[in-house]
Amino acid sequence: MNEVYMDMAIEIANGGSGFVNPDPLVGAIVVKEGRIIGQGYYKAYGCEKAEIDAIKNSVESTKDGELFINIEPELSIEDKSYIDFILNSGIKKIYLGMENPKSGFKGQMRKILSHLGIEVVYNILKEKCEELNEIYTHYVNKGTPYVFTKWAMTLDGKLASRTGDSKWISSEKSLEFVHYLRQRVAAIMVGENTVKVDNPLLTTRLKGITISNPLRVIVSKYGDIPLDSNVLKVDDNVKTLIVASTKIDEKKEKEIISTGAEILKIEEVDGKLPFKEIVKLLGEKNIDSLYIEGGSSLLASAFESGIVNKVYVAIAPKIIGGQNAVTPVGGLGIEKMNDAIRLKKVSHEIVGDDVIFKGYIAE
Amino acid sequence: MNEVYMDMAIEIANGGSGFVNPDPLVGAIVVKEGRIIGQGYYKAYGCEKAEIDAIKNSVESTKDGELFINIEPELSIEDKSYIDFILNSGIKKIYLGMENPKSGFKGQMRKILSHLGIEVVYNILKEKCEELNEIYTHYVNKGTPYVFTKWAMTLDGKLASRTGDSKWISSEKSLEFVHYLRQRVAAIMVGENTVKVDNPLLTTRLKGITISNPLRVIVSKYGDIPLDSNVLKVDDNVKTLIVASTKIDEKKEKEIISTGAEILKIEEVDGKLPFKEIVKLLGEKNIDSLYIEGGSSLLASAFESGIVNKVYVAIAPKIIGGQNAVTPVGGLGIEKMNDAIRLKKVSHEIVGDDVIFKGYIAE
Repeated sequence: MNEVYMDMAIEIANGGSGFVNPDPLVGAIVVKEGRIIGQGYYKAYGCEKAEIDAIKNSVESTKDGELFINIEPELSIEDKSYIDFILNSGIKKIYLGMENPKSGFKGQMRKILSHLGIEVVYNILKEKCEELNEIYTHYVNKGTPYVFTKWAMTLDGKLASRTGDSKWISSEKSLEFVHYLRQRVAAIMVGENTVKVDNPLLTTRLKGITISNPLRVIVSKYGDIPLDSNVLKVDDNVKTLIVASTKIDEKKEKEIISTGAEILKIEEVDGKLPFKEIVKLLGEKNIDSLYIEGGSSLLASAFESGIVNKVYVAIAPKIIGGQNAVTPVGGLGIEKMNDAIRLKKVSHEIVGDDVIFKGYIAE
Repeated sequence: MNEVYMDMAIEIANGGSGFVNPDPLVGAIVVKEGRIIGQGYYKAYGCEKAEIDAIKNSVESTKDGELFINIEPELSIEDKSYIDFILNSGIKKIYLGMENPKSGFKGQMRKILSHLGIEVVYNILKEKCEELNEIYTHYVNKGTPYVFTKWAMTLDGKLASRTGDSKWISSEKSLEFVHYLRQRVAAIMVGENTVKVDNPLLTTRLKGITISNPLRVIVSKYGDIPLDSNVLKVDDNVKTLIVASTKIDEKKEKEIISTGAEILKIEEVDGKLPFKEIVKLLGEKNIDSLYIEGGSSLLASAFESGIVNKVYVAIAPKIIGGQNAVTPVGGLGIEKMNDAIRLKKVSHEIVGDDVIFKGYIAE
């Protein structure tokens, strides 16, 4: 049953998706004599801890209850009020999905609470808990955003027809998935060509939940995007950052800033904006996660620079043909099939007639 | 239970794969009091019928037994010896997977045998029986080969790298699938470019069964393929047909014929060899099935001409990149995503980390 309770904790942790970054998603369940008596989650960055929320929400006394949390909290011996709260709740045993990846907090909960008579057990449904917070763990360890890519293509490997038309390759259900990913991440990135061709909003559109829009990051070396582009319509709910060269024309820079967008200037290397540097600077801006949506040459640069962590590909059973249709990953490409980038821990989700591949790039 | 017996009949019918064309695959099971007492299949074109084989193989008296056959035989009232054989066997009930698609034979078995006291039931596991003999039904109805295409591609939609390297995209298990398809069909087709680049054998390589090599059909407008190509190594077990223009150089034609290959000359239309005409002429040569293996531009022509019936695509979780890497279906391509060719009755098989899509092109 412990796995079932932990799975519920994961499920409710997702309620904080889009609001807790760069903190982890946390859910908590209080169980007493086999009954779930309370639940809570970490709602947004800086809010009350999930387990405190769960204990407060409990519908009966938590004395002798058990607490399930998907990730070990950041706990130190100085957190008197937190420790007192747990002791006063009467909780006798705590199950954790995974250790906190921060070295200063790793394993501390057991160390501190077992002295006070509370048993602490780690690694319940560990793998699933680790996947839930792969962004957090990566960001803690590297200081750079965890990078997702996702594209939808036809069964003959096209992102768009030869005229650039891509509406709509995948089913509505596959498209919805894009918006869940946008909700989850701190930033979304496209190249200037995508802005010119598709003029996307890059906002999150989901029904039934409160929306969190990611920071829109546009890679545009010399700021060559129309000033009336949708991504330059900036307001309190949706911000934009233009990644440009330090050689960008001063007038252009001022025009872009006048729209409300921010500019991040980076030194060119061999005439290119180096991706490793981009993600480093984004990491310094508290961006823990980045979803690169396209297009073809931006994705190629991202794969070439080795910054991609996780790949989603939706494939729809359609054939469009075309030697000059748009391929998902362009650039120069790898020469030998044997040297291809191989995905690890691959899984597949069948969504109607489409298949979504999920996999990781080995670091 | 009837479905279980019919499924077994389908299973053993496959033993004739590659040898019965342009006849159907047929398997038969004799059941008595819930015991399987005999089984048989149609082994090769012109051999004994599956049901006769099954009755002869029965390990006890077939009197009052039941017979399962996946497709209605071609039976007419004149087939005295066949009718006598069935009557003498004492079989009291016959279950058929599907009607014979030939108008002269459709429903005849019931008509003829029910008068003689044998009950005949149609459409047991109908859909699966129809898929088993989709080649036969198509060829009976149209007189042209049933056309398969199959390709393996990377998760970023590439058939080969920019240098043409394609070894090996898919897993061994996905590759094996190619050889089952080669075994099944009467002919396999590639373009001259594939011959020049890959120099394939196009033979069937499977362990544990007797091999049937399909006729190798090479589309080569002016016979521009090296005379020492593997496909021009012709012997009793593996033949080659070159589809060329009527404008082919006479010397070239003689050189090709001297290798033992045959030439099929077709009038060009707008400078191209028209695919509809190619499949019509192949049909007249008793070719009931054609597997187009590639490359990119041949597949494009096949799709453009509307001759493709069934599509298999194996997708491997690898990324190779490359604006100029080889795309599975080339040509000019369709302009609007909404006009894309959509597959019907799509199914997916997960083979390790690969996924094989299967689907039909609506006629």
